[in-house]
Amino acid sequence: MATEPKKIIIDTDPGVDDAMAILLALRSPEVEVIGLTTIYGNVYTTLATRNALHLLEIAGRTDIPVAEGSHVTITQGTKLRIADFVHGADGLGNQNFHPPKGKPIEQSAADFIVEQANLYPGKITVVALGPLTNIALAIQQDPAFVKNIGQIVILGGAFAVNGNVNPAAEANIFGDPDAADIVFTCGADVVAVGINVTHQVVMTELLLNIESISVFVHLSNYLCINLDEHNILDYCYYADRDKLVCSNGKYAQYLCKILEVYFSYHHDAYSTKGVYLHDPTALLVAVNPSLFTYMEGVIRVQTSGITRGLTLLYNKQKRFAEITEWSDKPSVKVAVTVDAPAVVKLFMDRLMDS
Amino acid sequence: MATEPKKIIIDTDPGVDDAMAILLALRSPEVEVIGLTTIYGNVYTTLATRNALHLLEIAGRTDIPVAEGSHVTITQGTKLRIADFVHGADGLGNQNFHPPKGKPIEQSAADFIVEQANLYPGKITVVALGPLTNIALAIQQDPAFVKNIGQIVILGGAFAVNGNVNPAAEANIFGDPDAADIVFTCGADVVAVGINVTHQVVMTELLLNIESISVFVHLSNYLCINLDEHNILDYCYYADRDKLVCSNGKYAQYLCKILEVYFSYHHDAYSTKGVYLHDPTALLVAVNPSLFTYMEGVIRVQTSGITRGLTLLYNKQKRFAEITEWSDKPSVKVAVTVDAPAVVKLFMDRLMDS
Repeated sequence: MATEPKKIIIDTDPGVDDAMAILLALRSPEVEVIGLTTIYGNVYTTLATRNALHLLEIAGRTDIPVAEGSHVTITQGTKLRIADFVHGADGLGNQNFHPPKGKPIEQSAADFIVEQANLYPGKITVVALGPLTNIALAIQQDPAFVKNIGQIVILGGAFAVNGNVNPAAEANIFGDPDAADIVFTCGADVVAVGINVTHQVVMTELLLNIESISVFVHLSNYLCINLDEHNILDYCYYADRDKLVCSNGKYAQYLCKILEVYFSYHHDAYSTKGVYLHDPTALLVAVNPSLFTYMEGVIRVQTSGITRGLTLLYNKQKRFAEITEWSDKPSVKVAVTVDAPAVVKLFMDRLMDS
Repeated sequence: MATEPKKIIIDTDPGVDDAMAILLALRSPEVEVIGLTTIYGNVYTTLATRNALHLLEIAGRTDIPVAEGSHVTITQGTKLRIADFVHGADGLGNQNFHPPKGKPIEQSAADFIVEQANLYPGKITVVALGPLTNIALAIQQDPAFVKNIGQIVILGGAFAVNGNVNPAAEANIFGDPDAADIVFTCGADVVAVGINVTHQVVMTELLLNIESISVFVHLSNYLCINLDEHNILDYCYYADRDKLVCSNGKYAQYLCKILEVYFSYHHDAYSTKGVYLHDPTALLVAVNPSLFTYMEGVIRVQTSGITRGLTLLYNKQKRFAEITEWSDKPSVKVAVTVDAPAVVKLFMDRLMDS
């Protein structure tokens, strides 16, 4: 008897790696994407909605509803931090795609998430790839939401490592620390995937260009190797971006268009020739949780001061003499290790095979 | 040509492990203790001064001056947190020792530290084993202090691990976070030793008692082993506290008296049969820095909110797009690994051999 696919809602701010995660989800038979909800982060919410609609049109999946989310943080007073320098001004690698034909549904993101959790109690997984405002609003709107929602998978946090917005904070949590603290302490089944894990999952840089292919051909002739396209792929098996370029897959070809800005940012910020697969990695927690190991503990978020947006996990190894801000709060799961080669392979295989 | 011993001032809140560190320093030819300065933390400052004088009398070193330090945090408004449940109400294992005969010098701790740094520019190492109020006051009092002081070794912080006061903060930094932030960013040669390192340095628990010694004797008779005191020490080489008990060393015998409360606290809080050698470990950075490895980075301290007292090290692996609170601040050294067996052995050898 085949297992029914897991119903997921992707809360997203596309975003290059959001696009990767959405396309990966649509290519993963283990999950059924029942909706996209949008949020600010990599872009403003209006543009996130537009990009979500665009991605569904690219994938030919306009049957999936898009619900627009909050335009402001949960306290409403905070200036938004938009990471256009990571993803391009349009969020999708400065490709200036045509506007999508579709429109978002009338419901807000929080209303949609609450409604679906009520319709399918215990069956819905929210995969949250941006700041957690929509999820916190859902928690505040419906006292039964925490009980009804199956699982909340969060791409967010920097556990025992430096952040990526500043040394203390990861971008999604920094985007709305108050909302994040609400979600982490709400009591639902929450799994956090921080940059301590996603920084291990690297899609490697393009190595091939006209010159290097020509070197390959010369070398193969010299070595009397019969070089065809398949051999080139063998030779450059460390370079994931090459494989995308060489692939005829529709999604692979699409991603190749939008990747340049994202690679360029990583090169400038981290001196790497690769990009972190943040959002696809978190998505794979919903698809195949056994690719990760987890620990349990209580997460609180610092909401003010120089470490605003810092996520602090209490691992319960010590019994404190005093009551702390972590005492009596529900535990969540936090990814601590990842089978990174398996994650990259699954990502590549599914996006090239289309 | 013999190297001149390094002049050190120990800023201390004795404290069981402070007592260990002070006695260890007095037994270490690599360093010359030119003064003790006192601070609140494990006990209130007045009691810290009394205990510092007492320890020097125990050691027969009343030639070393004691300068009393601040009774309040640098912002003066914060309620002190006194860790009497770790060290006993008297700070020294509830032994109710006779009051010391000596008195502190007239100078304040900060004045003494500043004066000595001026007298021996570049030659003085301050080993700070409590909250950093005195050191921050020295920095504020004398603009030349940062240039004149040789090195500041700090027992403090919890780098990428949970704290010991609460999940976010280590006790010494929590004791005066504002002072700690001043010291970490002052520009002097600062080395921080956090509980991520000192929790690796464990003095193991007493295993021997009358019954177990009797079992040893029976067993040795049965096995035809000639058991003398030396053999017992061989058998129990994992149990450091046994060795202290069996040692005739004056300092070892003294420590055995004050250890019970400290062991009992560790058992309750950490479910371990051992104690962390926090202060002696930090002291050994001054004695033999090659027992540790270090990384460099910028440390800031969160001074408010639920993670008040958190130490956050920026390791400079990422270039941030925006200016952060860590930008353009001087780097310090942070201990990251320790040769724990060597530290325990050095500690034990020096305290038993007296």
